Amino acid sequence: MRRCASDAQKLEQLRRLIREIEYLKYTLNSTLYWDKMTYMPEKGLTYRSEVMSFLGAQLYERFRSPELRSLVDHFSRQKDAPPQVSAMVRRVESNYIYINKIPQAEYQAYIALIAKAEQVWEQAREANDFQRFAPYLERIVDTFRAFAGYWGYEAEPYDALMSFYEPGTTVQQMDRLADELKHFVIDLFQTLQARGMPCGEPAEGRFRLPLEEQRALSQYVLETIGFDFASGRLDEGPHPTTLAASPGDVRVITSYQAEDFRSGLFNTLHEGGMGLYEQDIDPALLGMLLGEVASFATELAEARLYENIIGRSAGFWEYLFPRMQQLCPSLAVDERETLFQSVNQVRPTLIRNNADELTYILHILIRYEVEKDLIRGTLSVAELPQVWRQKYTDYLGITPRNDREGVLQDIQWAAGYMGYFPGYLTSNLMAAQFAAALERELGPLRHLLAAGRFREIHQWLATRIHRFGAIYPPGELVKRATGEPLRSTYFINYLREKYTEVYQLKKQ
Amino acid sequence: MRRCASDAQKLEQLRRLIREIEYLKYTLNSTLYWDKMTYMPEKGLTYRSEVMSFLGAQLYERFRSPELRSLVDHFSRQKDAPPQVSAMVRRVESNYIYINKIPQAEYQAYIALIAKAEQVWEQAREANDFQRFAPYLERIVDTFRAFAGYWGYEAEPYDALMSFYEPGTTVQQMDRLADELKHFVIDLFQTLQARGMPCGEPAEGRFRLPLEEQRALSQYVLETIGFDFASGRLDEGPHPTTLAASPGDVRVITSYQAEDFRSGLFNTLHEGGMGLYEQDIDPALLGMLLGEVASFATELAEARLYENIIGRSAGFWEYLFPRMQQLCPSLAVDERETLFQSVNQVRPTLIRNNADELTYILHILIRYEVEKDLIRGTLSVAELPQVWRQKYTDYLGITPRNDREGVLQDIQWAAGYMGYFPGYLTSNLMAAQFAAALERELGPLRHLLAAGRFREIHQWLATRIHRFGAIYPPGELVKRATGEPLRSTYFINYLREKYTEVYQLKKQ
Repeated sequence: MRRCASDAQKLEQLRRLIREIEYLKYTLNSTLYWDKMTYMPEKGLTYRSEVMSFLGAQLYERFRSPELRSLVDHFSRQKDAPPQVSAMVRRVESNYIYINKIPQAEYQAYIALIAKAEQVWEQAREANDFQRFAPYLERIVDTFRAFAGYWGYEAEPYDALMSFYEPGTTVQQMDRLADELKHFVIDLFQTLQARGMPCGEPAEGRFRLPLEEQRALSQYVLETIGFDFASGRLDEGPHPTTLAASPGDVRVITSYQAEDFRSGLFNTLHEGGMGLYEQDIDPALLGMLLGEVASFATELAEARLYENIIGRSAGFWEYLFPRMQQLCPSLAVDERETLFQSVNQVRPTLIRNNADELTYILHILIRYEVEKDLIRGTLSVAELPQVWRQKYTDYLGITPRNDREGVLQDIQWAAGYMGYFPGYLTSNLMAAQFAAALERELGPLRHLLAAGRFREIHQWLATRIHRFGAIYPPGELVKRATGEPLRSTYFINYLREKYTEVYQLKKQ
Repeated sequence: MRRCASDAQKLEQLRRLIREIEYLKYTLNSTLYWDKMTYMPEKGLTYRSEVMSFLGAQLYERFRSPELRSLVDHFSRQKDAPPQVSAMVRRVESNYIYINKIPQAEYQAYIALIAKAEQVWEQAREANDFQRFAPYLERIVDTFRAFAGYWGYEAEPYDALMSFYEPGTTVQQMDRLADELKHFVIDLFQTLQARGMPCGEPAEGRFRLPLEEQRALSQYVLETIGFDFASGRLDEGPHPTTLAASPGDVRVITSYQAEDFRSGLFNTLHEGGMGLYEQDIDPALLGMLLGEVASFATELAEARLYENIIGRSAGFWEYLFPRMQQLCPSLAVDERETLFQSVNQVRPTLIRNNADELTYILHILIRYEVEKDLIRGTLSVAELPQVWRQKYTDYLGITPRNDREGVLQDIQWAAGYMGYFPGYLTSNLMAAQFAAALERELGPLRHLLAAGRFREIHQWLATRIHRFGAIYPPGELVKRATGEPLRSTYFINYLREKYTEVYQLKKQ
């Protein structure tokens, strides 16, 4: 019977398996995780963790099932399959290759290593003692070099690691983009440092705003950019994030600071950009592993677009400021220009999470460089802290006094993220390239924003990018949406124009 | 290998299977359902329904697994198994007997019937047309008579249906309790009708309270009775309910009415009683199908205890009223006695959901009588509306003008609940019997409550009832907690004393 199953029957079987995988995946990664991040009472944690690891194991088993493998093999041999079927097969393959190509014992050893490494990293950071974490990082680097071997690559192992997050990314491509950016950003940064902010330092307490007013502002801003509250929610949690159980159920989690409303506002814009993407995905793509964002960086691009290119622009503040004055009676800032400059202030910091829009790029470049060299084997874990200090001194002009504010600050390596940092870079390039393509069609963003034409902006993104979900690999999606492959030009132009305006560079 | 597995190994296997069943069951019935009832955006419904029916099917499959059956068979043959093992086996058996003894085709036909019947019931109620629903109700009755045959019973089929909800309940026992109650309640009701409320009808709008004050009141009341907010939450939803993902994660959902705060307050007390029960269950019982309440009626008993026996008592209002006056500045009622009387007013109504504490019993007795006769075959579906009207006229002195306010008012039969209504009765008996046992040890509830000794009351319930979870069948739990089997005496005494006080019967 099975042997004679028609392609239509086989496709139905494949879709049934994928639907079940999605049910588990979305339940685990959205509803259960969302609840844990927002409303779960503290003593619910132990049992919730058990439930989540049970569902994780269920998911893993399904990705490994021989039935799934044989169906995917069947369709991946078909050269003339319809585009959606090929896309679906590509998605399943890329999802399960990463698990199935690793021998089970090694995968389990990795899970155990990571569980321990996160703990040790936390202690090491606390104790400001890199040596304690070093042996774990060495094993993590070795593990990922081995994984890269299982997954396969052409030029070098780091390609395989980057491709896990951004299919098709290579060191060759990334080096070119990084080089184009690096000197420009460092030069611009040094110019701005020398120039100084025209409005100077804002007074202490100037950005304080009661939480109730901040909540109203975030709600208003989400509605303004086009977030659909019939298909989504806005909640609070310690870690801002956006989680989608389906395009009809998208949850934005934001986080406010009473003493500075800018933090919560930009969290909301950042997450809201992702929220729009998730809501716009064509629901017909559900059940094929295609009803998801194209990649981590593609989603982050929408976040950076709304947070920075829109949210930190003069046009946006022209629109928002008078409305914000009405909505937030306690607002102490009474000049739009002051606010606009304050959200675009460039100031070097040792901690990536506190970085401004411009120097953030330098933080990511440093991580990309050392990570790539660790995986290549041209940099040893023992040398890492020294190289880190040197790069911060060279690029940002400041030197970490210790490892806590240096190499130990990020959890990513301890948590098994290798090849992940470059996505923070490409997302910014994508965002600027999307914005430039949009401007070619709709006119300058500045005017669109000042006139409150958020609906048109959203519509353009929905039509050109969002609705396709994961049908196209990220590189192809960028090409289709903007007419060219990913380039650094648009981001560089954007930064130049932005800071020329903010720092009034032409007036010098 | 498997054949030589020791009992310890077999027990470990059994517990592994049960743990997985619990993960699915609790995720489905608590977290996913809770989210659906509280925070899910409306367009999330379609996908959520798919996820929930997928997990339901997963659960069903696991209950049917041959591995589970063979392990349960093994342990159920052991006469000298430790008490927890026997309890666990009893729980698995009672859970899966109800599914496994029904031929699969018949079970599927039943699922389809119910799905349709709920729809038809809703239309029939809307159209006020019992004839439209009658053929479905006939098939439902036939189905449950067949199910009772598969499940097995000694005296009559209805015993099997009641036992599904309250293990071990029989018509013989229920008839005795019902008889003892019926004439007492009808007589008392007629006396009160003739007597009239001493304080008369409260003025319109007297119980209006802003939602913010109602929320603060509910929060305060939950804290007061001992609900632990580190292990639970209070939320709002259209249908008040309590859902536990584990004893450390118990979610109370309440519902407020702006025009009458009493509704929300009693919802919260009702659900809060259940919430205490869920939080007090010994977490060591998780993974054995024992970390749950003993039965539907046992849990409802705690709800009725806190809602009625405590919440509508003079002692409770003595404690709460001055605090409520402080907490709720908009409170318009300024006399405690008025409030106490208003929450104990007896007034006949055709709709069960609007009934007062006393006449509620008559609504349930009517449903018990007709349901039992339908299953026995001594009452036909065609005769049902006429019999219903007659009973309302006889017991409550009011006659439904139509089926919408008569036999079509409840969804239970359409939803496949047969043998469920008697639990609403026994829960009240249990609550009164628990309260009487507690008073024998701690002194009169009235004094405990007036003095705010909520902690002692809660402690008694936790120690005598809650912590045992589902180890004991409900009948045994009642006997252990109170020293005797379930009786109607305590409830009758309670009602007599309550209404003598409220209606000042002695002063007549």
